[in-house]
Amino acid sequence: MLGAGAWGTAFAKILAEAGSDVALWARRESVAAAIRAEGVNETALPGIKLPERISATSDLAAALDGAGLVFLAVPSQTLRGNLADWAAHLPDGSTLISLMKGIELGTTKRMSQVIVETAGVDPDRVVVVSGPNLAPEIAAEQPAATVVAGTDPVRAQQVQQAIALPYIRPYTSDDVIGCELGGAVKNVIALAYGMASAMGMGDNTKASLITRGLAETARLGVALGADPMTFAGLAGLGDLVATCSSPLSRNRTFGEHLGRGESLEEAQRAARQTAEGVKSCLAIRDLARAHGVEMPITEQVERVCHEGVDPRVAVKLLMGREMKPE
Amino acid sequence: MLGAGAWGTAFAKILAEAGSDVALWARRESVAAAIRAEGVNETALPGIKLPERISATSDLAAALDGAGLVFLAVPSQTLRGNLADWAAHLPDGSTLISLMKGIELGTTKRMSQVIVETAGVDPDRVVVVSGPNLAPEIAAEQPAATVVAGTDPVRAQQVQQAIALPYIRPYTSDDVIGCELGGAVKNVIALAYGMASAMGMGDNTKASLITRGLAETARLGVALGADPMTFAGLAGLGDLVATCSSPLSRNRTFGEHLGRGESLEEAQRAARQTAEGVKSCLAIRDLARAHGVEMPITEQVERVCHEGVDPRVAVKLLMGREMKPE
Repeated sequence: MLGAGAWGTAFAKILAEAGSDVALWARRESVAAAIRAEGVNETALPGIKLPERISATSDLAAALDGAGLVFLAVPSQTLRGNLADWAAHLPDGSTLISLMKGIELGTTKRMSQVIVETAGVDPDRVVVVSGPNLAPEIAAEQPAATVVAGTDPVRAQQVQQAIALPYIRPYTSDDVIGCELGGAVKNVIALAYGMASAMGMGDNTKASLITRGLAETARLGVALGADPMTFAGLAGLGDLVATCSSPLSRNRTFGEHLGRGESLEEAQRAARQTAEGVKSCLAIRDLARAHGVEMPITEQVERVCHEGVDPRVAVKLLMGREMKPE
Repeated sequence: MLGAGAWGTAFAKILAEAGSDVALWARRESVAAAIRAEGVNETALPGIKLPERISATSDLAAALDGAGLVFLAVPSQTLRGNLADWAAHLPDGSTLISLMKGIELGTTKRMSQVIVETAGVDPDRVVVVSGPNLAPEIAAEQPAATVVAGTDPVRAQQVQQAIALPYIRPYTSDDVIGCELGGAVKNVIALAYGMASAMGMGDNTKASLITRGLAETARLGVALGADPMTFAGLAGLGDLVATCSSPLSRNRTFGEHLGRGESLEEAQRAARQTAEGVKSCLAIRDLARAHGVEMPITEQVERVCHEGVDPRVAVKLLMGREMKPE
């Protein structure tokens, strides 16, 4: 497991409980040492006791040595730089699994595309895991389902077997593009949902935002070759609903700051970080424009985040579009 | 408008604000008289001032006299009996619009089918309105969208024009079956959501329930001839999310009572009524079985409501089904 943030750590816990020995790589030796000493990753998942089968390390070569399944859980925009350093250490034939939800700025590439390009591997070696999986709930062993997508069904099933637990139900899929887009665009829609929520909008309005948000995600997906049904599933609708509903979601919370009238800088200070959707909305908007796809919610989120548009004006514009068949 | 409950009254307000004169029929003369005297329907929509263009009456013939659009908003299971009495008074050529969300017990008919049969009209004269439309929020003029479905596009557009307002965005559709099923099955899924919520399930679990619930709704819909895309829209996903999210939803609230371990009778006493999904789950289960469609959530809700099964056992069964592709 490369990356010891909240999701990397919670996922390492799943793998260990499902029967694997897991090397959990953290960039900082202080984090790895604290996990070794206390059996807890206090920074990322406070209070959660990690299984003994997890060994934390900051030594990348040691972490990768002999690994058949290599899980990647680093911040989306750092993946390319990291992988360039790591590529030489990846075991031959290993499966590379992306746990990341974002689109690369500038290139507008999905995470699996960045992996294929940077590690120089065949696309069949890449698997994506995505679904309604808020890390703190998974760590607390709340029942959850997820999607394991890969173009090689054997590798997807290996990952499925490696994470199946009484509280985790993994489904397989061959739609890598759909799963990745569902996971990335939902962060942008959750920003809009948070804004609407902070502005006092009701559940009818917020449900419409989720519905229209999923529709624009599916439009982009279809233009890029995804299966439209993926967006009605756990990696589309499921992840979107969980992210919008949960007070644990960073993107929704960040949107609430913006909806209360705070500037991007004020919201960043209050949230102590930038939500992924703030970056991805630029890349997703560019991707949509390049493919001639209308994404009105994404367009408005980008304008609020990066062009100083008032969220009240943006939401009003969204509600006031012309009448037409659905 | 035949029916002066919360939704009938809120919808009459929309029609009046959009420029129509509206006769609002209430079964009890005391309700009609109170609305005439105070301009408010205190029983159904307390505190909401109704427009002057609404005239309340308990005289059915007067309410229907000269009406081009006849809106039906009575309890689903009373529709057949009511329409049998009303059929003779329906103006020739008028459009009959169903605002009801349920499936008839015993016959497993949708509301539009009951209208066609009982009023003896051509199916083209029937239009259905369904979407994420919690009545108290609409009455408070929170922005909302809805779907107007009919097999005759001209009649659907007439209804669309009659309800378009700055805070109401109506979309047209030709999928009557899909819109009606979305509206009816969502009540059953909201019962399951309420149970899971009261049992302390997290947002991952609840989002999965919404996703799998929509999937089983779509499976039934496709078997009955609906367009699968309807379920990804406002009358499917939108209505389901609004109903599950809102503390104003009767079905979700009723499910919470059951999830806290109350019996059906205790829940009915506490909620002071039976939620629509408690009745519809029987009819929907029968419909699914007759068409060979698997609806595991509906099956479990029916068992909890009518066969005394413990909701914890039901939810455990739902989470423990075998692994498979999504």
